[in-house]
Amino acid sequence: MAHRYDFASDNVAGAMPEAMQALVEANQGFAAGYGADHVAAKAADLIRAMLDADAEVRFVASGTAANALTLAALAAPHEAVICHQHAHIATDETGAPGFFGAGLGLIPLPGDSGLIDAGALAAVLAEPEVSYHQSPAALSLTNTTEYGALYSEAAAGALIGAGKRAGLKVHLDGARLANAAAAGFPLKALAALGLDVAVMGGTKAGSTPSEAIVLFDRSLARRFDARMKHAGQLVSKGRYLAAPWVGMLESGAWMRRDAHANAMARKLAALTPFKVVHPVESNGVFVEMDEAAHRRLADHGWRVYRFIDGTVRFMCSWATTDAAVEELGEALKAVV
Amino acid sequence: MAHRYDFASDNVAGAMPEAMQALVEANQGFAAGYGADHVAAKAADLIRAMLDADAEVRFVASGTAANALTLAALAAPHEAVICHQHAHIATDETGAPGFFGAGLGLIPLPGDSGLIDAGALAAVLAEPEVSYHQSPAALSLTNTTEYGALYSEAAAGALIGAGKRAGLKVHLDGARLANAAAAGFPLKALAALGLDVAVMGGTKAGSTPSEAIVLFDRSLARRFDARMKHAGQLVSKGRYLAAPWVGMLESGAWMRRDAHANAMARKLAALTPFKVVHPVESNGVFVEMDEAAHRRLADHGWRVYRFIDGTVRFMCSWATTDAAVEELGEALKAVV
Amino acid sequence: MAHRYDFASDNVAGAMPEAMQALVEANQGFAAGYGADHVAAKAADLIRAMLDADAEVRFVASGTAANALTLAALAAPHEAVICHQHAHIATDETGAPGFFGAGLGLIPLPGDSGLIDAGALAAVLAEPEVSYHQSPAALSLTNTTEYGALYSEAAAGALIGAGKRAGLKVHLDGARLANAAAAGFPLKALAALGLDVAVMGGTKAGSTPSEAIVLFDRSLARRFDARMKHAGQLVSKGRYLAAPWVGMLESGAWMRRDAHANAMARKLAALTPFKVVHPVESNGVFVEMDEAAHRRLADHGWRVYRFIDGTVRFMCSWATTDAAVEELGEALKAVV
Amino acid sequence: MAHRYDFASDNVAGAMPEAMQALVEANQGFAAGYGADHVAAKAADLIRAMLDADAEVRFVASGTAANALTLAALAAPHEAVICHQHAHIATDETGAPGFFGAGLGLIPLPGDSGLIDAGALAAVLAEPEVSYHQSPAALSLTNTTEYGALYSEAAAGALIGAGKRAGLKVHLDGARLANAAAAGFPLKALAALGLDVAVMGGTKAGSTPSEAIVLFDRSLARRFDARMKHAGQLVSKGRYLAAPWVGMLESGAWMRRDAHANAMARKLAALTPFKVVHPVESNGVFVEMDEAAHRRLADHGWRVYRFIDGTVRFMCSWATTDAAVEELGEALKAVV
Repeated sequence: MAHRYDFASDNVAGAMPEAMQALVEANQGFAAGYGADHVAAKAADLIRAMLDADAEVRFVASGTAANALTLAALAAPHEAVICHQHAHIATDETGAPGFFGAGLGLIPLPGDSGLIDAGALAAVLAEPEVSYHQSPAALSLTNTTEYGALYSEAAAGALIGAGKRAGLKVHLDGARLANAAAAGFPLKALAALGLDVAVMGGTKAGSTPSEAIVLFDRSLARRFDARMKHAGQLVSKGRYLAAPWVGMLESGAWMRRDAHANAMARKLAALTPFKVVHPVESNGVFVEMDEAAHRRLADHGWRVYRFIDGTVRFMCSWATTDAAVEELGEALKAVV
Repeated sequence: MAHRYDFASDNVAGAMPEAMQALVEANQGFAAGYGADHVAAKAADLIRAMLDADAEVRFVASGTAANALTLAALAAPHEAVICHQHAHIATDETGAPGFFGAGLGLIPLPGDSGLIDAGALAAVLAEPEVSYHQSPAALSLTNTTEYGALYSEAAAGALIGAGKRAGLKVHLDGARLANAAAAGFPLKALAALGLDVAVMGGTKAGSTPSEAIVLFDRSLARRFDARMKHAGQLVSKGRYLAAPWVGMLESGAWMRRDAHANAMARKLAALTPFKVVHPVESNGVFVEMDEAAHRRLADHGWRVYRFIDGTVRFMCSWATTDAAVEELGEALKAVV
Repeated sequence: MAHRYDFASDNVAGAMPEAMQALVEANQGFAAGYGADHVAAKAADLIRAMLDADAEVRFVASGTAANALTLAALAAPHEAVICHQHAHIATDETGAPGFFGAGLGLIPLPGDSGLIDAGALAAVLAEPEVSYHQSPAALSLTNTTEYGALYSEAAAGALIGAGKRAGLKVHLDGARLANAAAAGFPLKALAALGLDVAVMGGTKAGSTPSEAIVLFDRSLARRFDARMKHAGQLVSKGRYLAAPWVGMLESGAWMRRDAHANAMARKLAALTPFKVVHPVESNGVFVEMDEAAHRRLADHGWRVYRFIDGTVRFMCSWATTDAAVEELGEALKAVV
Repeated sequence: MAHRYDFASDNVAGAMPEAMQALVEANQGFAAGYGADHVAAKAADLIRAMLDADAEVRFVASGTAANALTLAALAAPHEAVICHQHAHIATDETGAPGFFGAGLGLIPLPGDSGLIDAGALAAVLAEPEVSYHQSPAALSLTNTTEYGALYSEAAAGALIGAGKRAGLKVHLDGARLANAAAAGFPLKALAALGLDVAVMGGTKAGSTPSEAIVLFDRSLARRFDARMKHAGQLVSKGRYLAAPWVGMLESGAWMRRDAHANAMARKLAALTPFKVVHPVESNGVFVEMDEAAHRRLADHGWRVYRFIDGTVRFMCSWATTDAAVEELGEALKAVV
């Protein structure tokens, strides 16, 4: 029996046709290197238009790099970034923020379903500064969260506002911003809420490897290309990182196809006989499943992972089909 | 008049058809993430076969990253890497080795046309160690060099041998290894000469952004994926970095198309009325050209750069056409 | 009323007479720089004799630096160090291990009174390695712990053994090793238990600023002076860091005076009407005290701090007098 | 025959009596830790008064650390610091600026006797910024220089002015600022010239290990203690780093005794039969001396070092006696 990895993550899918088509189209003629090409310019324009923001935009091949590179621009090595304790930057990036930030610290906070608890944030912001701690310089939110939960504009705004009033810079890990947008988060609110930096996910949304770094605070753009080059993040043939964005945004597929991913998760949530633990607001379904059931599911060919909080996670993507969800639903019913 | 950038660098070209075709083919179905996919496995096999070496292979999107990441694996922060004073790692990577290596130093050596002078190397290796200097832990060669010169097997072997006898690890910056191979350098010699790490260039050879890291010293592979992730260099959809290699190597185009690039450089060298300064052994032509002539050439639409040594550099690539070389040759005759 | 800081920490005391006397004596004539002086040689001999170990010894001015510098020698940037969650390296060093280690991670473990729980250690060591986590490369113990608890030889040995069997290097934060030794920990066991590195506290024991780095694994000493210099930790007039050790160890005062500190803590524990929370095995007393009582105590002039676990901490030192303990005891009775 | 190291460096001398006396006096009672003590406050006041500047002052145990820590506060990792090619930070600190600055680069400039050539500085400042180079963010001067030369107020002012106009921060390595002051450099000019940071040498001037960091730009002081702690540079018993400054400055010995050091160098320069190469403006004498003569001098017991420029260096200090200079003079005459 073949193994099925399709629900193991949203990065096991390939690239959507619109992204591939744009990639092929970008492969014409000569182009300036290091992000100074016409494709990058067009992709940046499309992002600025979508966000209604006069921001600087760059493209890198890795979300971990996009996060760590920008966090290092927001906080000094002896400072810290406040984040959810299960944020990707805290749990799944092998300490990259500390590497890019020369020892930059993280201050992990609790909160339901990956959403930072406002009270916990207030408590940290009220702590006196002492020289033997890394005091916070930035706040990082993730939308949608690691658990598929969605910050509403109001909820994000409350946290961002608290951070800004305390003098913090604010960073958004938007690896799944397409899913958030498809779930109703208004992209044009990002600039208005005072974000300094957003990382917009291309890869999980359905691109070949590419993440967009959006510098709302344009002063951060000073020597940012040198910062990227110094950190091994400025690819010479930049057009191949920008092109998928042109394809995904011009066509509207970035959001439309991730609305499909979200719908597939809802469908799965309706089918599964296991208890769904987190709100299914985007493309992930997290269920209570004991080891024996998990093993039986694997025996049926389905490979999915136990997550940090002990639940078992099912991720949908642009490429998830109704048929696959139904097949999985059958398997789940068989192993419950 | 349109600007012509085609000779400005070998990274202004697009990707060769074989690379693009493989990329499109790799975009099928689901695949494991983080380099554990079937495409990466196949690309690694092809590289091992070509090098006749039982090496570990990884793929990253940037040559700067490939160099800096591996140098940091070969030398501690308080140590140094010996390289040519005009090596790319010393002059064109914005200090990336120092960043990846937490302050890792470089010891730049002189030598004709980017080839490290054996006497200068011997002199450095003979210096006593003192605590206030960064003593060498590794040697980095570049083949072909920044000036298009080629290390023969014997010349590379002499330097590598000297380094190994002094206890150094040895790194090859092979951003243009395809050009070196096309010019006669035997790829199977790399392992035999005792290299610890080679970076094989995909991008300049004609790929979308991708460089192969070849760990001849397999002990370096321990936790290397974590090292890559920590440094923002482990892309989740790894198949898109590996696929072009499958296309370029299975077809033989990697070396065959770069033989064409080398041939175009020889053709240009024969046409130019300006004095050629460095041996034309691969895909670059470096000439003496005063500012006025450089400007006149720009007025004809041709954009090329003055290099570190004061010469003006013309780079050919897999995409350079006979017609373009001839057009450029006409322009050069007009502005001399 | 004058503020009394004497119980606020064990680093508010001055230097013991034996340390000062040796400092004055070392201030004679000319001496080689950078640790190559006769005083450093003598101090290292005294430490080797006390530990019965053929170790390399260095001296630095800061315990944070001594810890971070050696941890960075034991674990790569993409790896982690296992420690107690309230270890000084995790809570009170402003992220220094991450800085010296270029993003080196920590894996914090629970355990009573600062003693690492053996089961928690076993659980971490049993986890599979994945590229998105920093896998452990070293284990750090603290003796005595932040809460004044003492590892017995057997308890330390069990943890060290578990670490060694898993391939970890082992580090001891011995900022209060004098107190541990005075409480019965056999110093000669350190080498026998397989420690790779110990940091021996001079400062808290009663020296002017100086900590001894003991490299039991002599292979770590290769280029260690360069490592120190690179990290700003190799002072040129090294004799002034070594001299206090000569004075403290030749006279036996290092351990004898810290036995006094331990005795003062026991005396205080016997006097305090507040509930003592952690075992009083060395020079600290931790009590349950509500905010109001804490404030009243401050009103009596006594400045002491609330610790990480919510208790209020009283530290004794070589300079703590019986009279001071009695005065404090009176105040405690008055504010209870 | 005993070896004589007294002219080998100015850090082979002990501490002057005024420094030791203050150290002993500071060793009274309890004091707050981490630089918040009364001794540090007094030392900082004395420095501010001497410099006529409302600056923040900190003390660290190593000049290398003082330089690297402050340079890292002035330039980002992807930026560079302009300095003389033979500046201590470039040649004798084992790459510490790159470590503290996470890959921070240096741009070394030529100039006679360690004085930065104004034309070379202008040329660097005129270079266009490109992403593949580390563009300058700061300028570092050394006074007196590694070769004992003195920047006049006008000469320093010209370089500082050029740097400031280009938007650079300016750093002074004042490891031998006492010698510069004794040679006539007006200390009160430092603030007026627009310096951002000065490192004032205690150690070479005649202290136990201590260097003063003077933050003329007070905005740099924000979280500077945390920066120090994070880098292992905030010693807990800070009074022992501050005390020597109280002794040296209250008594005027810091400058007076270094005037003596300068005078001893002039005396030596008058006695030596070897050609003096650099202007003898402070406490060093650099001579042309072939290997054979250097060896004969060593046979007479005198240990001195060949410097970077090939000369042999003789350093005087506060502790150099007339008799020693005369003895050395005799030896020099014997070996010429």
